[in-house]
Amino acid sequence: MSTGSVANRTVALAGRAAEPRVGEAMLTLARHLRGRGAQVRALASQDLDFGDLAVELVAEGELPHGADLVVAVGGDGAMLHAARMAAVSGVPVLGVNRGRLGFLADVGPERMVESVDDALEGRCIPEARMLLQATVRRGGSVVSALALNDVAVAKHDTGRMLDLRTWVNGAYVNTHAGDGFIVSTSTGSTAYALSCGGPIVHPALAAIVLVPICPHTLSDRPIVVGADSVVELELAGRPETRAQVVCDGIPMCELEPGLRLVVQRAAMTATLLHPPGHDYFRLLRSKLHWGRSGRDGEHPGN
Amino acid sequence: MSTGSVANRTVALAGRAAEPRVGEAMLTLARHLRGRGAQVRALASQDLDFGDLAVELVAEGELPHGADLVVAVGGDGAMLHAARMAAVSGVPVLGVNRGRLGFLADVGPERMVESVDDALEGRCIPEARMLLQATVRRGGSVVSALALNDVAVAKHDTGRMLDLRTWVNGAYVNTHAGDGFIVSTSTGSTAYALSCGGPIVHPALAAIVLVPICPHTLSDRPIVVGADSVVELELAGRPETRAQVVCDGIPMCELEPGLRLVVQRAAMTATLLHPPGHDYFRLLRSKLHWGRSGRDGEHPGN
Amino acid sequence: MSTGSVANRTVALAGRAAEPRVGEAMLTLARHLRGRGAQVRALASQDLDFGDLAVELVAEGELPHGADLVVAVGGDGAMLHAARMAAVSGVPVLGVNRGRLGFLADVGPERMVESVDDALEGRCIPEARMLLQATVRRGGSVVSALALNDVAVAKHDTGRMLDLRTWVNGAYVNTHAGDGFIVSTSTGSTAYALSCGGPIVHPALAAIVLVPICPHTLSDRPIVVGADSVVELELAGRPETRAQVVCDGIPMCELEPGLRLVVQRAAMTATLLHPPGHDYFRLLRSKLHWGRSGRDGEHPGN
Amino acid sequence: MSTGSVANRTVALAGRAAEPRVGEAMLTLARHLRGRGAQVRALASQDLDFGDLAVELVAEGELPHGADLVVAVGGDGAMLHAARMAAVSGVPVLGVNRGRLGFLADVGPERMVESVDDALEGRCIPEARMLLQATVRRGGSVVSALALNDVAVAKHDTGRMLDLRTWVNGAYVNTHAGDGFIVSTSTGSTAYALSCGGPIVHPALAAIVLVPICPHTLSDRPIVVGADSVVELELAGRPETRAQVVCDGIPMCELEPGLRLVVQRAAMTATLLHPPGHDYFRLLRSKLHWGRSGRDGEHPGN
Repeated sequence: MSTGSVANRTVALAGRAAEPRVGEAMLTLARHLRGRGAQVRALASQDLDFGDLAVELVAEGELPHGADLVVAVGGDGAMLHAARMAAVSGVPVLGVNRGRLGFLADVGPERMVESVDDALEGRCIPEARMLLQATVRRGGSVVSALALNDVAVAKHDTGRMLDLRTWVNGAYVNTHAGDGFIVSTSTGSTAYALSCGGPIVHPALAAIVLVPICPHTLSDRPIVVGADSVVELELAGRPETRAQVVCDGIPMCELEPGLRLVVQRAAMTATLLHPPGHDYFRLLRSKLHWGRSGRDGEHPGN
Repeated sequence: MSTGSVANRTVALAGRAAEPRVGEAMLTLARHLRGRGAQVRALASQDLDFGDLAVELVAEGELPHGADLVVAVGGDGAMLHAARMAAVSGVPVLGVNRGRLGFLADVGPERMVESVDDALEGRCIPEARMLLQATVRRGGSVVSALALNDVAVAKHDTGRMLDLRTWVNGAYVNTHAGDGFIVSTSTGSTAYALSCGGPIVHPALAAIVLVPICPHTLSDRPIVVGADSVVELELAGRPETRAQVVCDGIPMCELEPGLRLVVQRAAMTATLLHPPGHDYFRLLRSKLHWGRSGRDGEHPGN
Repeated sequence: MSTGSVANRTVALAGRAAEPRVGEAMLTLARHLRGRGAQVRALASQDLDFGDLAVELVAEGELPHGADLVVAVGGDGAMLHAARMAAVSGVPVLGVNRGRLGFLADVGPERMVESVDDALEGRCIPEARMLLQATVRRGGSVVSALALNDVAVAKHDTGRMLDLRTWVNGAYVNTHAGDGFIVSTSTGSTAYALSCGGPIVHPALAAIVLVPICPHTLSDRPIVVGADSVVELELAGRPETRAQVVCDGIPMCELEPGLRLVVQRAAMTATLLHPPGHDYFRLLRSKLHWGRSGRDGEHPGN
Repeated sequence: MSTGSVANRTVALAGRAAEPRVGEAMLTLARHLRGRGAQVRALASQDLDFGDLAVELVAEGELPHGADLVVAVGGDGAMLHAARMAAVSGVPVLGVNRGRLGFLADVGPERMVESVDDALEGRCIPEARMLLQATVRRGGSVVSALALNDVAVAKHDTGRMLDLRTWVNGAYVNTHAGDGFIVSTSTGSTAYALSCGGPIVHPALAAIVLVPICPHTLSDRPIVVGADSVVELELAGRPETRAQVVCDGIPMCELEPGLRLVVQRAAMTATLLHPPGHDYFRLLRSKLHWGRSGRDGEHPGN
C-alpha cells in the first residue's frame, strides 16, 4: 500500500457483522470512508444493512483481492481470520477491537476512524508477521492450511494421551506423550502456547516455538527453533488414540496413524498495521497485568 | 482380610489377560495359589486358558465380591480399574506390574508370588486411599462414577477453550478458561494432575487437588483443599463448546451447559497392599528420575 | 478473647509507626479506642506522638502480653511480625492494610475502626493458623525461630547451587540441587512458595508444602505433606557453598555443612480475625487478578 | 584452525588439573600430542607434573594465545571458562568431559584422544556460539565481563525481593519483583535459565532469553528477543536490597541502586568443536531423560 490520499483507495471490512458492536463499527467506518471518497467492500453473505451507502458486496474469497487495506473488526479471532486471508492477497490489515485491546487487534473503537486514516495515509507502522503452513499428505491428496498463531495437534477423544514423534529439519527430536503439541509462531507465543508454558517470543524474532501440551515427562519443555525449520509430527503407537490438526483454533483434519504433518514457514507473510506509537512491551504489560501485582507485599520479609 | 494361612482364601485375578505378559503372570499366580490350596477367581469373559487348574470364572461384577484379595496384574491402569471395583466390595488390592514399577502397581514380576503370599499372610502394608465420586444430575436421572486418581472435565471439540465455573463447599472459586479442569485425589496427584502443573501430594494427606488444564489466565494455579470438600463445576458461556467428564481416564458423560458436576469423597475407600519395605519417597525418586539429573554440571559456576 | 464491650479491653497496636500512613492509622485507632474506654498499648521505641491520649508505651516483648487484641497496621509483613508475636501470648490479631488488601491484612483503612469494634465485640471470624518452628542445633546451643509463612534455606553467595538433602518423618526424600528450598505453611502458600511454583493451599487444610527453589532437576516438584510432618534439611557436598535459614523473610542463621535444620509445626497457633463476610476465594480472585484476564480473546479460535 | 597434520600444531590444555580425573586426562592427552609432534601448553600455576614431557607452562592469559586448539577437560564449568578465554584469542575449543557428557563438554573420556585428532585434522564440526558482554559503568570506571551461558542479577542478601527495571533496545519492558533476573544466550538456555522456567533455545537460533527468577507476578514470563538486542537493567526502589551481577556463575560486581547493567552480544564468538556425528537433540534427550519417563503408565486411562 503506497501512502497518499484516501480517495480511490479500496478498503475491505472483515469481521462478524452479526455481532451488534462489530456491525455498528463497520457502518461507522463505511460512512467515513465513503465520505472521503474511498471504495468500501464487505462480505455479501452478511446481513449488515449499509443503507444507501455504496458498498461493494463480495464473496469471501474476493474480499481482500486488490484492496489497499483490510480492516478487521472484532477480537483477535477476527484478526487471525482476516490476516490469513489478506496475506494471500498481499494486503495489509488493521485490527479494530470492540472492547479491550488485543495482541493483534490493537486499535480501540474510539480511535478507529483516525487509525484507518492513518493507515491509508501511510502513518501506521507496518509489521511483517510470518505464517505457518500445515500440510498433511494422504495418498495423492494434500490437506493444507495457514496459521498466523499456531498449528496444534490435540487429542480428539479425551482420556488418553497422544504419543507424538517430532522432527526438526529431519533430525528426530522426541516422542512426546501428553495432550498434544503446538507449533507456534512468535505471534502465537502469547496465545495458546503461553497457556501451555511456552515463552513469550518478540514478534521481530523469526522463530518457531514447539510446545508440548501437558507433557507426561516433566522435562519435556518448550523448544525455540529458527523460523526456517521444517517441523514434522507423526502419531506413535497407541492405535486407538485419535488426533486432530488445528490451525489458529480451526480444525484442519484428523492426523491418522501413519500420516505425517509438516509445518513450516509459509511463502507469504501477513502485514499488520499498528497505529503510531505502538509499543509491544506496553501491550504485554497491559495484557498480562504486569505492574499491578495483586500479591504486593506478600513476599517474605516485606 | 484377616491374617492367616493361604488355604481356603479366595483370590481374584484382575487385568487384561489378553496381553501375553499379563496372561502369563496370571497363570503363574493361579498355579501357585491353587498349589497352596487357595480359591482362584478370574473373569469369564477373558480367553485365558487356565488348563486343568480349577479356577472359578465369573462376571466382572462378581470378581471381587467375597474375595480375600484382588491381585491386579498390569500397569497402573489395571490397578485403577481393580481398585475401584475392589473398593465397592471392601477387598484389598495388590498391584503386580508387568515391567517397571508403577505408583500403584508396585510389585515387580520377580517378586509377585512372594508378595501374594505376603498379602495373604498379613505381611503387606495396607493403605487406605480415598476415592472420588463424580455425579451429574439431569432431570430425574443421575450419572455417577468413582475415581481413584481424578475426575477431569476436558474440552470435547478441539480448538476452543472451555469456561468452567467452580465452587468449593458452596463458595464460588473462579471461572477457569482453558482446556479443562482436574479434580484429583492425593493418589492422582502424580498422574494427569502432575502433567498439568499440580503438586505432588503425599497419599497420607487427605486432600483434593484442583488443577486447571492449560489455563488462559497465568495466575490460575492449582489449589489444594481438604478431602471433605464438595467441588462443583459448571460450563459457563460459550454455548458452542462441549465438555466431557472423565473419571480415571474413562469418559463418564458429557457435561452439558446448565448441568452441574459434583465431585466429592466417595463413601468407600480403596485398600492398597504394599510389599514390606514400601517407601513412597523411594518410589517418587525412581519414577521421577530424581538424583540422576542429566543436567549435572550445567548450572552456572559449576 | 471473650465477646463483650470495648471498655476495659486492652488493644496493642503493632506496625511501623514511622511510615506516615501507618502512624496516622494508629493515631486514629488510639483515639477511637480511648474514646470508648479501652486501654491502648504501643511500642515505646517508636517515635509516634500520641499527644494527650493515654497510651501505654511498652517494650516489644510486652506488647501483646495480656492484651485482648493485637491490631497490626501495615502490609502482610507487619501482619507476619505481629502474628508471630501474638501467637506466643495467645492473643488474636486483626490486620489493617494501608492500601490494598493483603492475604493476611485484610481490613481496608476505611473500615478499620468498625472492624476493631467488630473484633472486640466478637463479630469477627477467628481463624487458627499453624506456625512452623525452625530449629538448628550446634553443639549445646540451639537457634530457633517461628514462621507463619515459611522457612526457606537459600544460597548465600550467588552463583553456585545448593545441594540440600531432605527428610520427612525420618524418610529420606531427595537431594535437591538449586537455589534453595522452602518449607511453607498453607498460609505461606500464596507468598514466596507461589513464586517458586508451589500450589495454593487452602488455609483450612493442615498441611506443609515443600517447594524447591529453581531446581536443577526439572521433575523436582513441590510436595504437600501433612501438617504434623517433621521436615529435616542438610547441606550436601559442595563445601564452598553457603546457605542461610530465613523465617518469614528474616534471616535466622547460617546452615553450615553438617548441621541439620528441623522444621515442624509449632506448639502455638496464630489466631487471625477476619471481618464478617470474609471469603478466602474472593481474596484469591482479587489478589491474583482472576476473572480479569488481559489475554481474553487470545486463545486460538476465539 | 586450518585442517592438516597434528605435528607443529599448538594445543592448550585447560581445566582444573588438581582434580585427579582431570589431571590424568591431561597427562594422557599431553603424551599423545607430544608423541605426534604437537606443541602442548598448560597452566604454570597448576601442580600437574608432566614428567619428562616437554610441555610449555604459561600464565592463564597466555594459554590460548596463538594456539590452534584449546582442549577443556572437566565439566561444563571448565568448558565455560575455557570458551570465554579462547573466544578472546579466536581459538576453537573442544570439551572433554570427565564422566557423563555435558551440553558443552560433549566428548567422553574414552574418545578424547581420537576426538583431539579429529579436531586437529579438521574432522570436527565447528559451531560459533555468541557470547554476552555485561557492562556496568560507575563514574569514569567500567566493570565488564563475558558470558557464554548467562548474565544474572541475583539478590545478595536473602529474604528480600529485588525490583528490577528492564529495557530492551531502549523500550521499557517491566519492573520485575522477585529473586532476580537472567539474561541468557541460546547456549545458556539449558543451564540456569531452564531451572527458572525458561525455554530451550536451539543454539543455531541467534537469540537472547530474558528469564525472571521466582517472579512475584505469576504472568511475568520468559521473553525471547533477537540476539542483537541491548538489554538494560536497574534496581528500582527498596533501597535496602542488594544485588549482584553474576556472569556464567562468577560474581562480577554489585549492582548498586542508580547503576545500570547493560547486556549485549559480545564482539567475539566462541567456536565449539563437536565430534563427527554430533546431534543436539540426541544430547537433549540424553541430558533431560526424555524417552525414559518414570511415569509411564501413570496417565489416566492407561
